[in-house]
Amino acid sequence: MQIAILGTGAVGPALGKALRAAGHQVTIGTRDPDQTKARDQWAAVDLPLAAYQDLDAEVFINATNGAGSLPALQAVGDALSGKVVIDTSNALDFSQGFPPSLFVSNTDSLAEQLQRELPETRLVKMFNTMANQVMVNPGALGDDSTIFVAGNDPAARQTAASLAAELGWTDVFDLGDLTAARGLEMYLPLWVRMFSQIGRPEFNIKVVR
Amino acid sequence: MQIAILGTGAVGPALGKALRAAGHQVTIGTRDPDQTKARDQWAAVDLPLAAYQDLDAEVFINATNGAGSLPALQAVGDALSGKVVIDTSNALDFSQGFPPSLFVSNTDSLAEQLQRELPETRLVKMFNTMANQVMVNPGALGDDSTIFVAGNDPAARQTAASLAAELGWTDVFDLGDLTAARGLEMYLPLWVRMFSQIGRPEFNIKVVR
Repeated sequence: MQIAILGTGAVGPALGKALRAAGHQVTIGTRDPDQTKARDQWAAVDLPLAAYQDLDAEVFINATNGAGSLPALQAVGDALSGKVVIDTSNALDFSQGFPPSLFVSNTDSLAEQLQRELPETRLVKMFNTMANQVMVNPGALGDDSTIFVAGNDPAARQTAASLAAELGWTDVFDLGDLTAARGLEMYLPLWVRMFSQIGRPEFNIKVVR
Repeated sequence: MQIAILGTGAVGPALGKALRAAGHQVTIGTRDPDQTKARDQWAAVDLPLAAYQDLDAEVFINATNGAGSLPALQAVGDALSGKVVIDTSNALDFSQGFPPSLFVSNTDSLAEQLQRELPETRLVKMFNTMANQVMVNPGALGDDSTIFVAGNDPAARQTAASLAAELGWTDVFDLGDLTAARGLEMYLPLWVRMFSQIGRPEFNIKVVR
């Protein structure tokens, strides 16, 4: 499958390498490919780079930070129409320092905002409840844990769930429509606090049911 | 240990019976003991009832609903001074129907509000991330899962953690000071959504780490 990933932070390259290892054709988008290539850490990332507006794929993955997600997706433009967009982002507001608060929550979510602004996309919230190390290697935790999927289009949720399964996820919990993104995004403050206490990002929750 | 529970909904009697079975002396408080005794469902609950202002104990457990928590605790008055108060409540706002939103979140929490209003108490957030059936019988889920504890007084957290252990909890995750209650309370929208999808309240999360 042709997959385009928006964002060259930690999440984008990690997902890109794992999805390429699973047999997909992956391109990563950035605002300025030449500037990104010049960064030291990019030398180790062997994935094609394109500017956002040049991305074309069957599935897009938003791996930008929350505040930059809408402009990044808007920069892709018409190529997003009808496509599955997997949103991994979190509405983290670090303006008051650590720990972050959320810049949207409770009666709305970042994923719902993106879906409203980009109504032609089939947006799915997934991957936002864990660190990139866990996204691409769930088995390393030593016990099964849970990944969540939410979105208004059941077929899009299934596409995302299948990609998760290819990465090793054995418990993909379908939460239904995109209003579930409120809960998934509001979980982040608990994740951040657990991260502080555990002292490393390699953890996740398992829904025992 | 002498334990007083505020609240005669589902949580209070469930915790009361389990803690009495563990060997504690338990009293439950309500605004109006005679009115509560007259309710059909109370006939099955064989625990002493007292008005809030008559409660006296080493440990108090707030099992009232979120909106009623401050007035209930204030009604106990000076008896709370210096005591461990385990706050199980959630800031659920059902005024717009189901699913509920939270009436405080993100940069503050209900537990922090209660601690500020009742500075002489040693408040601990615990039990709010699960249904009462799970609080008192964690082993019934078939796999270990996690209960969280947060509060500004380490000894109070330890007292609460010990009570959880007596109820069968094997993984009590100490999240540190009471600002962690933000994450614990903001987890509720995800809990509510999982409850809707699972269709029963007997579930919990395990932190795999």
